[in-house]
Amino acid sequence: MPQYTPPVRDTRFVLDKVLKLDRYAGLPAFAPATPDVVNAVLEEGGRFVAEVLFPINHSGDQQGCTRNADGSVTTPDGFKEAYSQFVESGWGTLSAPEQFGGQGMPHVISTAFQEYMISANMAFAMYPGLTHGAISALLVKGSPEQQAKYLPKMISGEWGGTMNLTEPQCGTDLGLIKTRAEPNADGSWSITGTKIFISAGEHDLTENIIHLVLAKTPGAPDSSKGISLFVVPKVLVNEDGSLGARNAVSCGSIEHKMGIHGNSTCVMNYDGATGWLVGEEMKGLAAMFIMMNAARLGVGLQGLGVGEVAYQNAVQYAGDRRQGRALTGAAEPEEKADTLFVHPDVRRMLMEAKAMTEGLRALCLWGGLQVDLAHAAESEEERQLADDLVGLLTPVIKGVGTDAGYKVATDSQQVYGGHGYIAEWGMEQYVRDARIAMIYEGTNGVQAMDLVGRKLAANGGRAVQALFRIVGEEVAAAKGKPELASLAEALEKANGQLQAATMWFMANGMKDPNQVAAGAYSYMQLMGIVAIGLMWLRMADAAATALAEGGDDRAFLEAKLVTARFYAERIMPDAGALRRKIEGGAESIMALSPEMFRAA
Amino acid sequence: MPQYTPPVRDTRFVLDKVLKLDRYAGLPAFAPATPDVVNAVLEEGGRFVAEVLFPINHSGDQQGCTRNADGSVTTPDGFKEAYSQFVESGWGTLSAPEQFGGQGMPHVISTAFQEYMISANMAFAMYPGLTHGAISALLVKGSPEQQAKYLPKMISGEWGGTMNLTEPQCGTDLGLIKTRAEPNADGSWSITGTKIFISAGEHDLTENIIHLVLAKTPGAPDSSKGISLFVVPKVLVNEDGSLGARNAVSCGSIEHKMGIHGNSTCVMNYDGATGWLVGEEMKGLAAMFIMMNAARLGVGLQGLGVGEVAYQNAVQYAGDRRQGRALTGAAEPEEKADTLFVHPDVRRMLMEAKAMTEGLRALCLWGGLQVDLAHAAESEEERQLADDLVGLLTPVIKGVGTDAGYKVATDSQQVYGGHGYIAEWGMEQYVRDARIAMIYEGTNGVQAMDLVGRKLAANGGRAVQALFRIVGEEVAAAKGKPELASLAEALEKANGQLQAATMWFMANGMKDPNQVAAGAYSYMQLMGIVAIGLMWLRMADAAATALAEGGDDRAFLEAKLVTARFYAERIMPDAGALRRKIEGGAESIMALSPEMFRAA
Repeated sequence: MPQYTPPVRDTRFVLDKVLKLDRYAGLPAFAPATPDVVNAVLEEGGRFVAEVLFPINHSGDQQGCTRNADGSVTTPDGFKEAYSQFVESGWGTLSAPEQFGGQGMPHVISTAFQEYMISANMAFAMYPGLTHGAISALLVKGSPEQQAKYLPKMISGEWGGTMNLTEPQCGTDLGLIKTRAEPNADGSWSITGTKIFISAGEHDLTENIIHLVLAKTPGAPDSSKGISLFVVPKVLVNEDGSLGARNAVSCGSIEHKMGIHGNSTCVMNYDGATGWLVGEEMKGLAAMFIMMNAARLGVGLQGLGVGEVAYQNAVQYAGDRRQGRALTGAAEPEEKADTLFVHPDVRRMLMEAKAMTEGLRALCLWGGLQVDLAHAAESEEERQLADDLVGLLTPVIKGVGTDAGYKVATDSQQVYGGHGYIAEWGMEQYVRDARIAMIYEGTNGVQAMDLVGRKLAANGGRAVQALFRIVGEEVAAAKGKPELASLAEALEKANGQLQAATMWFMANGMKDPNQVAAGAYSYMQLMGIVAIGLMWLRMADAAATALAEGGDDRAFLEAKLVTARFYAERIMPDAGALRRKIEGGAESIMALSPEMFRAA
Repeated sequence: MPQYTPPVRDTRFVLDKVLKLDRYAGLPAFAPATPDVVNAVLEEGGRFVAEVLFPINHSGDQQGCTRNADGSVTTPDGFKEAYSQFVESGWGTLSAPEQFGGQGMPHVISTAFQEYMISANMAFAMYPGLTHGAISALLVKGSPEQQAKYLPKMISGEWGGTMNLTEPQCGTDLGLIKTRAEPNADGSWSITGTKIFISAGEHDLTENIIHLVLAKTPGAPDSSKGISLFVVPKVLVNEDGSLGARNAVSCGSIEHKMGIHGNSTCVMNYDGATGWLVGEEMKGLAAMFIMMNAARLGVGLQGLGVGEVAYQNAVQYAGDRRQGRALTGAAEPEEKADTLFVHPDVRRMLMEAKAMTEGLRALCLWGGLQVDLAHAAESEEERQLADDLVGLLTPVIKGVGTDAGYKVATDSQQVYGGHGYIAEWGMEQYVRDARIAMIYEGTNGVQAMDLVGRKLAANGGRAVQALFRIVGEEVAAAKGKPELASLAEALEKANGQLQAATMWFMANGMKDPNQVAAGAYSYMQLMGIVAIGLMWLRMADAAATALAEGGDDRAFLEAKLVTARFYAERIMPDAGALRRKIEGGAESIMALSPEMFRAA
């Protein structure tokens, strides 16, 4: 059975030495995040997920959720009790605003905790994760009355939340939505339609579930411009905050899925359910994007979280399993065989997993910090820069992060050989769980299109120019340091490939947007190499500095330098290939008629 | 629910236009493969698998195998009946020798059929697949008596066969085997031990199962040099060929796996079971490699087969599903949305799937042909060349083929968006099924080590030099043809990267074998790019020739030229990156102590 230890040491390294959170101690938004509090969150939060959530991860996968005859859904054994503890301990309130009962901590801290929670039990973590998305939308678009009515109990975790976008005929293309909202005399709306793939749509963890639902109002354009957002509680809430009548929304069925069996994925039927408009009519798409952006960072974190726990177990197995001998002669002649660690090809997989998980951890925490700085930084210039960068890199964190999570999970499973394919070892669950993160909240292809079609060109390319400038400046500074020079040169080269690809898009995209779309995925991957490369440069710099200062835990710091080198030698070479693929353009991709795809 | 159409048109294209089988019509071994017979095999065989095996693929996955209290194993509903039809129709006998009741067809033809069978139902195809491996070993190493006793009924399919290598403590490192064989007075042996991961180890499809079992004899060295191979029938066979007593071998349990649920993966207990030595004592490893080599080509074919059926369904879905609009303006304004085919990033996945499946089909059929030519070609020179090439490329077909199969299955699932993750759509099964092929019959990392550690250096590098020469000659010839020139140049470049990487190994491997092992996986991938690139050059050449000759089915032929271009533009750029990774060497991979891998 798998094991999990929250990587507190590495999180601390990123927070303290790479992001240097103490720089922000003077900002009001960072006031609650004193070193003691941060330490307690990481240590206690890590202990909570390891002791309470992790033990029910595998059993939750094997058992799954059950829809009962009355439409209720029962979560796997232990989920309800664990969720109660989650609520009692206040783990859902970390970065929620204090005015609604939250702890007001920076997002960078709750991001660290969320990684641990996902590693321990991704299916479980999705329940508060979806609530978090719904909270985000209500915080920005909800009326004061709606906020007062729903947010305190959603933030405490007493109530859950969901996002209802997808319908049988529409996923990405939300203009095709058929769910209708008809106005009632009292200002409420009557919602009718069917939503599918609703994560946490129905379950037994909370006494109420607050659904946020996209629907079309009478006379609205039959396109994405005609969509409005509604709040539709499962149980109506009285004026005094007590629970009233059951609303006309129910779970029609739950899906049988490849993974995340512990999370209930529901078909939700709205049969004239009572709802209230959130924000303005026909401005639902903008509200939805607030939920989506928060959710996309969280999904990127799922790639990291599942990759991390899979990697940890692969390391454990590589040390336990003895098979074959080192090519350079038996490492442990007194044993019948050496451990898997002697085999370079096993190490290749472990090193790549290490480079990607640690790189993604730095990138995700950096992303969380930008979310904070976009609101809380001292100057307008800093706030705008943070907002630009997190906007640009959100699709990269989601797309590249979840692709990497699946790759790491698959490679970690591979380290186990045949045992990796057997359910009881737990590794195949990580692959199945990781897979969904590449699909939902916008497939990774949609992320790539968001990056090249929206984020790249926004504000005259201000965000990507900022990225190029930052990488250029840090590369220039690092080249002067002998222990960083070759990594800096590799990053400079990758950044050059990214710049060249960007230029190629500018030169060719105006004439034919397909030229950009055909290279979008490679471009997203290329930007991921640069962004994670920048993180590795910063981590190597921090490690070298700490080593020079005689820091403790030297093996940990030296491993950072070795892993940074591995990243430069084994991952960055893909940058040139990605640029060449982008420059291949759209012709061979667009040439075939649908009929010509058929070999049969 | 998924669909499947055997790609007979494409198989015919490869057999007729690329491999040009008619060139070999004069060889005795090819005599049974008249055009009429080949056509009948493809058409009737394709119909059989599509109508009989494919309908029980998804249900077989959902139901799985059951071990009963008495140790018997029940396969999923319909498997027994389908297997009876398989035996009655003689599909297992295609390329088996006529002296034991086979049809004596070339392997290249049975390879084509096997692809279809795997696409239709991989879990089912494994039952005859394992029998086929056992047949291979008995054909080469079995005594005339053993051959007479077992082969006719194994070839007809009335009896099954298995390969028993793995034990709890040993997979790759077979020197660690603990199963013991003690000699009996009558010349038989008494086998005792536990084998795990035995595919088709116990089932209800056949009245007998002939196990081939690796074990150690008394006094044998406790290493891979001390291993012997034994034939251990489930039911003892009397002198007259009738079935006798049940042997002391039983299925202790079956595994719960990520996929291939329709195939029973058994723990097999040998409790003093009666067996007979196959070949010489302590020469079991060599006999095992005969089974393994046949099996590895078959596993590579699994990558192709599962990838093909997944791709076919993704193409179907892309045409059925309407979502969004073409970037260049609505393609079908009268519809509410365009099909997925308008989106370049969806086409990127489909084109890659097309390029890889068609490329792998050509490579697998080419491999099957080399197996034939290694025995049946006219001259010793031709026979040796064929043997060299198939030996060199077997690990590439297995490793690259199964990695590609998993990638194609994953990408095809991705085309479905959220529906791809739901069991009833059938796509997630393909991902789960494809995953095992990267692990068993030697993990893909073991394939890479076989390639660089054994195949590359064998006979002074004769095989790889032959590959370089063939690619060089065909590139030179193709450069003169305008429609092939750019593809030829791309292949020349990739071949140059492969040659450079080979030189790098020669220069660095003597001092430190880890330098080679650290780059083994990238090298295998690089050789795959070249080998499949060679197939695309041949396919493009054949298509261009057929078009120039005014051939029918011009859209099919034009698609070949477009896909070849896609391969050159979108896949071959990886060759340079792979070479650079190889030249990164072993230092950063070998530097960390096991303890330093822990981030926690």
